[in-house]
Amino acid sequence: MADWFTLAAPLPDQEAAAAARARQAILTKPTGSLGQLEEVAIQLAACQKTETPQINTPHILIFAADHGIVAEGVSLFPQEVTGQMMANFVAGGAAISVLARESGAHLSIIDVGSILEEPLDRVVTDKVTRGSANFRRQDALSATDLSHALAAGQRAVERALTAKTDLLILGEMGIGNTSAATAIAAALTQTAPAQITGAGTGINPAGLSHKRQVLEESLVFHGLTADPQKAPPEPLEVLRKVGGHDLAAVTGAYIAAAQNQMPVLVDGFICTAAALAAVRLNPSCRPWMIFTHQSAEQGHGHILGELEARPLLNIGLRLGEGSGAAVALPLIRLACSLHNKMATFEDAGVSDKTRASKEQSNDTA
Amino acid sequence: MADWFTLAAPLPDQEAAAAARARQAILTKPTGSLGQLEEVAIQLAACQKTETPQINTPHILIFAADHGIVAEGVSLFPQEVTGQMMANFVAGGAAISVLARESGAHLSIIDVGSILEEPLDRVVTDKVTRGSANFRRQDALSATDLSHALAAGQRAVERALTAKTDLLILGEMGIGNTSAATAIAAALTQTAPAQITGAGTGINPAGLSHKRQVLEESLVFHGLTADPQKAPPEPLEVLRKVGGHDLAAVTGAYIAAAQNQMPVLVDGFICTAAALAAVRLNPSCRPWMIFTHQSAEQGHGHILGELEARPLLNIGLRLGEGSGAAVALPLIRLACSLHNKMATFEDAGVSDKTRASKEQSNDTA
Repeated sequence: MADWFTLAAPLPDQEAAAAARARQAILTKPTGSLGQLEEVAIQLAACQKTETPQINTPHILIFAADHGIVAEGVSLFPQEVTGQMMANFVAGGAAISVLARESGAHLSIIDVGSILEEPLDRVVTDKVTRGSANFRRQDALSATDLSHALAAGQRAVERALTAKTDLLILGEMGIGNTSAATAIAAALTQTAPAQITGAGTGINPAGLSHKRQVLEESLVFHGLTADPQKAPPEPLEVLRKVGGHDLAAVTGAYIAAAQNQMPVLVDGFICTAAALAAVRLNPSCRPWMIFTHQSAEQGHGHILGELEARPLLNIGLRLGEGSGAAVALPLIRLACSLHNKMATFEDAGVSDKTRASKEQSNDTA
Repeated sequence: MADWFTLAAPLPDQEAAAAARARQAILTKPTGSLGQLEEVAIQLAACQKTETPQINTPHILIFAADHGIVAEGVSLFPQEVTGQMMANFVAGGAAISVLARESGAHLSIIDVGSILEEPLDRVVTDKVTRGSANFRRQDALSATDLSHALAAGQRAVERALTAKTDLLILGEMGIGNTSAATAIAAALTQTAPAQITGAGTGINPAGLSHKRQVLEESLVFHGLTADPQKAPPEPLEVLRKVGGHDLAAVTGAYIAAAQNQMPVLVDGFICTAAALAAVRLNPSCRPWMIFTHQSAEQGHGHILGELEARPLLNIGLRLGEGSGAAVALPLIRLACSLHNKMATFEDAGVSDKTRASKEQSNDTA
């Protein structure tokens, strides 16, 4: 039997997309003059099977886990911060907590692999291991870990899909996870880690140079270095060897969202690395993804290019937690409002250029 | 007596900026990880003289006028559209009408020089001439026109400044005004029009080539072509010769906003050309400007560079009406919410990296 995550998701509704595109052309503005806002309204129309898409009840899912690679000194913050930030998420003090409140979005936190021994209050705990292994020296995850984490992503999506939910936002939290995301992106795109390794939470140049070396050595250790003679490695193998519980859960959640015909916002560097793994595993999930921002993290543009994605924002965000996607949410809502509520040329009695040219021809005649 | 528009505006409050910057550093996120959202919150803190800025009652001012240059065939839409769109603004069907409603912003439309003979209902009419002259063959405005239009911008700002107003957004409407804006930008930055002329509402390549030629000939006619041997021309001379009522009113409004210590969002290409004229006339207004987007119009990046401005959005907008600024408004509001409502490391009991390094030192000791 095929694994659940390889089952094809339906294509978004192309008739709704065509109707939305036709609607854009008769609104009182020069055609195309709302740029990417027009495109995102049309994409969302297709995903929601309606000419007039809207976002009333978005749901944010944050997957948290710890990473053994921090033993190599690749991050600025201590590992305990993963758990502390989960507590901050539910207490309401983190960036994503503020953004969820301001946007009226549901917020669910899922611990898929932190080092915490006791479950946190108001956090869903769905894990079989506490923290991944140090992938500089061994596989990050066992096959069981990987399979559990992918399915934890699916379970979280299915819990979030009440009758009202009309958009998902995925995010992550895990000290060390820019290292895992960089290793995944390097392996899947056959790129040297040096080209796409960034400063994560803000390490200095010496720290960055060390992180690059650790990632380079890790890819050599796992036989995942770029080799133009070979096909790129399998995404499952990459997630298991150099990934992490959070990255695998986000990957599974993107696929499950598409299989459930639910549009999903893609956040920054780490989520985009998981989105790339998801698209490589199951290309049918790509049309359900809306890319929200290009972060300050060095390799993000590279992965976005690989996904042919043109995100809405590029304002130097590098926080994670789904925060960039949540910041872009009001833009997407305004794109829907403009699409649904602007007058047409006919309604407003405004001359459009076609009519104007006809009038000019008549004048000349 | 000095003209009103040359009187210096106060500098925004540097103590409030310092307090806001210090606050950003203790919130539960890596320092700088909210990128330009941190910068805009700090700028707004300085403008509003408070550590915790907010936007509750924004006011949008749209200045509309007609342009004689359309006789040269530089625009896709007929001149009657300026008046029709003003009617659409107040009827609620235009992009800016939808955005104002969704954002809870006041919207005022000011006719500073359209060709309409009768005042439109719910539009403020503040003009001495109907339409500018064709600047390919004569001065766009008389000295009286220019002075009246600059002051119309000031009057509109002062009407908008109720006790509650905490932000202004300026916009424009005028068939043909990308041509005037391009001529202004070319003259003020001593650049050949060919380098910065764009498609405006969407003219085709032949139309674009014609528009470039008309603008080149206009600058020659007025003695405003680039000359590295001479200082750039005076902004008042440029506004009078190749500007328009809307551009002059927006210029006056930026200066009046700053003089009244009111932060103001700068919209797209045309507003940025007026912002450049305002800054050249009165550099003290620059710190009160928040740049919101880089439009699809070809010359916009050039003028933004001249103003050392890094806007929040770059999503291919090219509609005008203040619409890009209004689209960016929720981002700026979220920047304030994050700034004001996130927990500090201490409040949330999260280890920050300073504390973490101390702990590491202790461990080593």
